[in-house]
Amino acid sequence: MKRFTAILLSLFVAGAAMAAEHPNLLLTKEGVRQMKAAKGSIPLFDKSVEKLISEADDAVQKPICLPVPKDGGGGYSHEMHKLNYYDMYNCGIAFQLTGNKKYADKVKAILAAYVDFYPSLDFHPLGLSGNPGRIFWQTLNESVFLVHTAVAYDCVYDSMSKKERKTVEEKFFRPYADFIMHGLPHNRANTQMFNNLNNWATWATAGVGMIGMVMGDDSLVQKALKGSDLSGKGGFLRQMEVLFSEDGYFTEGAYYLRYAIWPFVTFAQCLDHYDKSLNIFSRRDGILLKAVDALLQMAYEGEFMHFNDALEKGYSAQELISAVDIAYHANPSDKSLLSVAEKYQKKVLVSDAGFDVARALSKGEAEPLNLHSGYYRDGENSDMGAFVIMRPYKKTLNSAVTFKATSHGLAHGHFDRLTYAYYDNGHEVITDYGAARFLNIEAKYNGHYTHENESWAKSTVAHNTLVVDGKTYCKGKWRKAQETWPKPYYHSFKEGLQMASATEDQVYPGVSYSRYLVYADVPFLEYPLIMDLLKVKSSEEHQYDLPLHYNGHMISLSVPYKKATETMHTLGKDNGYQHLWVEAEANGADGVTSYTWLTGHRMYSVSTNTSPRSEIKICRLGASDPDFNLRSEPMYLIREKASDHLFASCVETHGKYDLQVEQSANLVRSCKSIESLLDDGSALVVRYNFIGEHSATLCVWTASADENAVHSLSLPSGETIGWKGVADVLYK
Amino acid sequence: MKRFTAILLSLFVAGAAMAAEHPNLLLTKEGVRQMKAAKGSIPLFDKSVEKLISEADDAVQKPICLPVPKDGGGGYSHEMHKLNYYDMYNCGIAFQLTGNKKYADKVKAILAAYVDFYPSLDFHPLGLSGNPGRIFWQTLNESVFLVHTAVAYDCVYDSMSKKERKTVEEKFFRPYADFIMHGLPHNRANTQMFNNLNNWATWATAGVGMIGMVMGDDSLVQKALKGSDLSGKGGFLRQMEVLFSEDGYFTEGAYYLRYAIWPFVTFAQCLDHYDKSLNIFSRRDGILLKAVDALLQMAYEGEFMHFNDALEKGYSAQELISAVDIAYHANPSDKSLLSVAEKYQKKVLVSDAGFDVARALSKGEAEPLNLHSGYYRDGENSDMGAFVIMRPYKKTLNSAVTFKATSHGLAHGHFDRLTYAYYDNGHEVITDYGAARFLNIEAKYNGHYTHENESWAKSTVAHNTLVVDGKTYCKGKWRKAQETWPKPYYHSFKEGLQMASATEDQVYPGVSYSRYLVYADVPFLEYPLIMDLLKVKSSEEHQYDLPLHYNGHMISLSVPYKKATETMHTLGKDNGYQHLWVEAEANGADGVTSYTWLTGHRMYSVSTNTSPRSEIKICRLGASDPDFNLRSEPMYLIREKASDHLFASCVETHGKYDLQVEQSANLVRSCKSIESLLDDGSALVVRYNFIGEHSATLCVWTASADENAVHSLSLPSGETIGWKGVADVLYK
Repeated sequence: MKRFTAILLSLFVAGAAMAAEHPNLLLTKEGVRQMKAAKGSIPLFDKSVEKLISEADDAVQKPICLPVPKDGGGGYSHEMHKLNYYDMYNCGIAFQLTGNKKYADKVKAILAAYVDFYPSLDFHPLGLSGNPGRIFWQTLNESVFLVHTAVAYDCVYDSMSKKERKTVEEKFFRPYADFIMHGLPHNRANTQMFNNLNNWATWATAGVGMIGMVMGDDSLVQKALKGSDLSGKGGFLRQMEVLFSEDGYFTEGAYYLRYAIWPFVTFAQCLDHYDKSLNIFSRRDGILLKAVDALLQMAYEGEFMHFNDALEKGYSAQELISAVDIAYHANPSDKSLLSVAEKYQKKVLVSDAGFDVARALSKGEAEPLNLHSGYYRDGENSDMGAFVIMRPYKKTLNSAVTFKATSHGLAHGHFDRLTYAYYDNGHEVITDYGAARFLNIEAKYNGHYTHENESWAKSTVAHNTLVVDGKTYCKGKWRKAQETWPKPYYHSFKEGLQMASATEDQVYPGVSYSRYLVYADVPFLEYPLIMDLLKVKSSEEHQYDLPLHYNGHMISLSVPYKKATETMHTLGKDNGYQHLWVEAEANGADGVTSYTWLTGHRMYSVSTNTSPRSEIKICRLGASDPDFNLRSEPMYLIREKASDHLFASCVETHGKYDLQVEQSANLVRSCKSIESLLDDGSALVVRYNFIGEHSATLCVWTASADENAVHSLSLPSGETIGWKGVADVLYK
Repeated sequence: MKRFTAILLSLFVAGAAMAAEHPNLLLTKEGVRQMKAAKGSIPLFDKSVEKLISEADDAVQKPICLPVPKDGGGGYSHEMHKLNYYDMYNCGIAFQLTGNKKYADKVKAILAAYVDFYPSLDFHPLGLSGNPGRIFWQTLNESVFLVHTAVAYDCVYDSMSKKERKTVEEKFFRPYADFIMHGLPHNRANTQMFNNLNNWATWATAGVGMIGMVMGDDSLVQKALKGSDLSGKGGFLRQMEVLFSEDGYFTEGAYYLRYAIWPFVTFAQCLDHYDKSLNIFSRRDGILLKAVDALLQMAYEGEFMHFNDALEKGYSAQELISAVDIAYHANPSDKSLLSVAEKYQKKVLVSDAGFDVARALSKGEAEPLNLHSGYYRDGENSDMGAFVIMRPYKKTLNSAVTFKATSHGLAHGHFDRLTYAYYDNGHEVITDYGAARFLNIEAKYNGHYTHENESWAKSTVAHNTLVVDGKTYCKGKWRKAQETWPKPYYHSFKEGLQMASATEDQVYPGVSYSRYLVYADVPFLEYPLIMDLLKVKSSEEHQYDLPLHYNGHMISLSVPYKKATETMHTLGKDNGYQHLWVEAEANGADGVTSYTWLTGHRMYSVSTNTSPRSEIKICRLGASDPDFNLRSEPMYLIREKASDHLFASCVETHGKYDLQVEQSANLVRSCKSIESLLDDGSALVVRYNFIGEHSATLCVWTASADENAVHSLSLPSGETIGWKGVADVLYK
C-alpha cells in the first residue's frame, strides 16, 4: 500500500514537472523533502551533503572572479571559470537542502556577473581548438559549464524575481545556448558540432536541453533531443542510437564512454523528471544502463582499460558517480552498482539518485560487482567488430586478457587492430600506452593532447599487434581507418578454455592477418596461459614487426644480446619508430626465444617461435620527444621478413617473488619449445612444449567457425590429431 | 596477588630453563600452556596459528628433499633448503601447540636427512661469496638456517629419545656450529666472520648460542656471547655495544638494521628465557628496544628509507614481526608497537611474544605510532655523525625530509655524505636509488648485488649531494671512507623552522663543503618549503655537480633546453657517470633556474641560483648496463666550475592535480628569484623571492652554533638584518 502511494506520488511529481516546477533536473521537490527528512540517518548521504555544503560555504566566502579568457586547460582563467560553475552548482543544491538564502544569493551574484561579462566575449583567443568556446578554449568546456549552471539555476529559480530571471535568461542563457547550438554570428561552426554524433555533441545537447527545461522553453529541449533542425539526424536521441552498439559499447572506447556517460545519464535523468513518457532509460532495450554496465566491465581494479586515447581514470571519477547513482535510480534491482559506490566512490551525488544509492547502502543492500568475460560488439548496428574481455573463472585469480577488434573509434581511436593487453595480480602487465596528454597541465601543451599523441600513442607500433613494413596502417588517417573494421572470427568463454579471434585484411594492402588468442587453464602450470597465434599472409615479402609493450623490469632474454652502452639510436625515423631508443638487439634462437620480466610479485615470460633470422629489439620509449612528453616505457619486439608468417607465442605467468619473507619460487619459464605442426590454410596446430615432458597442443580450425564440427587431421609428422569445435588444447 | 603469582611462576620457569626445560627459546612451557588455554579467543593469534599449522600440514605431506648445493639465492637448491628450515620451524611449533606427533616426526625426519647429508658437504660450489657456506652459497644463510632449526629442535627435544638426540647433535648440530664458528678443517676463515662485528656475526652468534641452549651446552652460549675465544672482543654482547649508537642507529642503516634486528631480538628473547640475570633488554640503557624504535622511525608509509644498500622492505617484513612482538614482550608499556602489528603486519609470531601482542590487541590497547623528527647519532660512541629526519608538526601533512651525515656504513654504505631525500603525500619524491640488486632472482647475477651496485648505486653521483670533479670520493673504497665522517653542525626541530646541517672536509682533498637544510612553514606558501644551502670552498677551481634524483614526470625547465632526439650519449665514462644517458642539456639563467616535475597529485619545483655559465643536464639512468640491471630513473643536475660556490636552492611542493575530478590548481612554482645577500665565511644570508612580492630570507650563522647568540649584520646592499640563534627565516 505504501509503495503504491509512492508510485502515485512520483507520477504526480512527474506530471507537475511538465508545468515547470523547480527544482526538477537532478533534484525534485519530493526528493528534497525526503532528503531533509532523512537528515542524519544515512551516513554516506550525510557525508556527501556535508562535503557539498562545506564547498558551498567556501564559495560563499570567496570574491567572485571572472578572468578574461586566456588560458588552456589547467591555466588560471580556465580553472577559475570551472570553479565558478562548481561553485554555482554547489551553492544551488546547498540552497535547496538548507533553505539558507546566502547560497541562492551567491548563485545569483555569479550569474549576474556573467550577465555583464559574457556578451563582450568573442571566440577564445588561444586558437588551439577547431571549435573554440568563448569562456573556455574549446566549446566542450562551454557545454559542461552549461550543464552545471543549469542545475544551479534550477535550484534557485524560485528564489529569483521574474525580472531577475528575464535578465539572466535574455542576456546570458539564451545567447549561451545559441552559441553552443550555432556559434557566433560571424562563425556558425558550432551548428555542425551540436548536430554531430560524438561526446562533444552529447554535452552540448545536454546543456542546451537542461537550460531549456529550467527556462520552460520546450523548443530548446526538442532541439537537444532531435538536433537544431529538429530533423532527428542529430540530437540526443540519435546519439543514443548511433554511439552505442546493442551491447552498450561506445565507439570511442572505455575512456571516452566514461566521459560521455556523464552527460548521457545526467540529461537522461533530467528528461526522466521532465517527461516520463519518453521512457528514456528503457529506450533501445535500456541502452544507457547497458552502457553503464559495459563501462564497469571495461575496467581492471576499478581503473578503465587504456585503449584509444585513455588517461588514468576509474570508478572513482566524478562521471562514474553520476553514472552509478543515476543507473541505480533507474534500475534499483542492480544491487552490484551499490558496491561500486561503496568500495570505490565513497560518495554519492547530492540528488534524488545519490540519495537512493546511499539509502540502499545504509540498508546493507550492496552486492559484489561480478566482473566476467564479455564480448562487446561495436557499431550502431553492432556489426563493426568487437572488444573482447576474457577473465578467469577462478575468483582467486585477478586477471583479464583483452582483445581489440573494434572499429577505429573516431578521432580518439588508435591504429591498433587485433592488439591485446593483459592485466594480472593488480598490475597492467602487457600494456597499452593510452593517450599522450597531461590533462589540465598548462606547461604541457596547454593540457591538450601533445603532438606525440599522433606521432606515438596512436601509431601501430605503440600497440601489441602486427606492424607491416614499419608503417602505421591507413597512413595514420583516422577517417580512412574508420571506413573498415576487423572481422571477428570466433569467441568462446568456456571455463578453462576461452578464446577470441579476428581477421584483418583491409588496412595493409595485400596483407591479411588473423589472430587467435586463447586463455587456458593448463593442468601443469601455476597460472592460466595465454596462447597467441598471429598468422600473416601476403603474396609478397614484407617486414613483420610484433611489438610487446609491458610494464616491469627486464629479467632475461633466452638468447645472447648486445646492449647499447655508450650511445643509443632510434629504431626508425617515422611511424612511431622514431620515438623508440634501441636498448638492445639480438637474433632469435632456432626454435623458440623467450623473454622474461618482473611485474610486482610475479614473473611473466613470452616465448615465441623464432629462427636465427628473426631479429629481436629491446627498446625504450622517449626518443624524438623534444618536450619530455612521453613516459619512459619498455618494449620487446620480434621482426620477421617473410611473405607468410605465423607468430606462435605464449605468455606464462609464473613464480612468486616475495621480498617481505624473502621467498621466491618458479622464477624460470616453463616453455621449452614451440612447434608449428600444421599451417595449411584450414587449420593451425601448434605444440607448446614445457619442462617435465609436458605439452599443450593448440588446434584451431581457421576455415570456418563451426562449434560442432569434428576435426581429425593427419599431421605432416604422421601423427593424427582430432578435436571438436573451432579450437581445443590437448595436454600431455 | 594474581600478578605476584605470575611473576613468581615466571621466575620459576626461568630458573628451570637453566636446567634445560623445553621449549625455552621463543616459546616457553608456560607460554604454550596459556596459548592453548586461550585458543579461539584471540583473533590475531588464532589466525597466525592457523596459518602456521596449515603450513606445517603442507610440510608434513611433502616428501623430504635435500638437493645437492648448487645455486645462489633464488635458485632451486637454495630455496629448497630454505623451505626445509621453515618446514622444521613450523612443524616444531605446531607440535607444541597441538601435541600432534606427526609434526614432531616430520622435524625428526628432516633432521635425520640432514644427519646423512651434511657431513659429506664441502664448501658450496658457487664461489661467489668470500665466506661460502656448505648448504648455502654464503655462510650468512647457513646461520639463518641454524637459528630456525634450533627453534624446531627445542620444540621437539622432549619427544626425541636420548639416542636420537645424541645422533643429531653429534652428526649434525655440533659440526654445524663448529662450521659457523670456524669453518672446515682446511679453511678456518669463519673464525674471523664469527668474531666480526656486523650482521653476519649476529646471525652466526644467534645460531650457535641458540643451538647451545637447546643442547644444554652452555659453552656454546658463552662463545656466542663473548666470541669464540671468550675474550669479549667479539660475540653478541660486544655487537650490542659496537653496532648501535646510543640512539639505536645501526651503522649500516635502516635496511640492514631491519635484517640485523631479527637475530638481535630473537637471540635476546632466547637469552631472556635462558638467563634472566643477563637483563639483556636493559643492557646499555635498553639499546635493543631503542634500535627497534629507531628502525620504525626510519620509515615512510611503513617502508624503510632507501639509503645505503636498501631494497623495498617495510614494517610488514617478517623480521619486523619478530622485532615488534619481542620488543613489546620486553616492554609492554609501548602500546604504539601494537598499532604496527595491527596496521602493517596483521600477523604475530607464534611465540610467547606474539601471543602477548595479539592478546593486547584483542583488548584494544593499540596506540598510534608517533612518527616525529629525530636525530640519530651514528657510531659505537655516538660521535660518528648523524642521520636526521625532519617531519612536519601538522598531522595533515604526510612528509619527511632526511639528511645523511653518518659514517660510511661499512661494506653496505654508499658514498653519499650530506645527501638528502624528500618524501611527501605517499611518494618518495627526491629519491635515493638504494641497492642495485634483484634479491633471490637467480637470472640476475644469482640474486646477489649486481656489478652496478658498485659502479652506480654506491657512487656519489647517484645521490643528492655534491660531486667534485666527477669523482666518487675516496675512490669508491669503503674502508677508506669508513675512516672519517661528516661533522654535524647544528640541528633544530622547532615547530615551523626545522634544520639539519653538517660539514664535510675530508673526502675530497682540498675541498670543504657544508650543507644547511631548512624545512620551514612559509606563511604564504601552500606546503612547507625546503631551503637548501650547499656551500663549497676550495683554493682551486673544480667542477661541482649537484644532482637531484627524483621520482615523477618532467613538467618544465625554466630555461630553453636541447633534447637528444635521435642519438643519446652518456654523461661520462666512469664514477657512475657512465650509467647516465644525457636526455637534455641547457645553460642556467642569470639568477635562478627552476625545474618542475609531477609526482602523484602534486607538483615539485626545485629552484637554484644559477648563471649562464651554469650547465644543466637532464639525464636518465641505464647506460653501460649490459645486463639490464638498472632501473630507468630520471635525474636533474646542475654543474658549476668554481673554487668557492654556494648552491642556494629551494624545493617547493605545490599544486593539486586531480584527474578524478579534473581539477588542478597552483601548478606553477612561486619562486621567482634567489639572491645571495651575504656569504662572508661567518654567515650566509639568502633571499628567496616569490610571486606576490613575498620573500623568505634565510639567515644562517655558520661560524659557531650558539643557539642564544644574537646576530645583527649590515649587508653589502646596505640593508641591516638581525636574528637570534643559528638560523632563522624572515618572511615578507
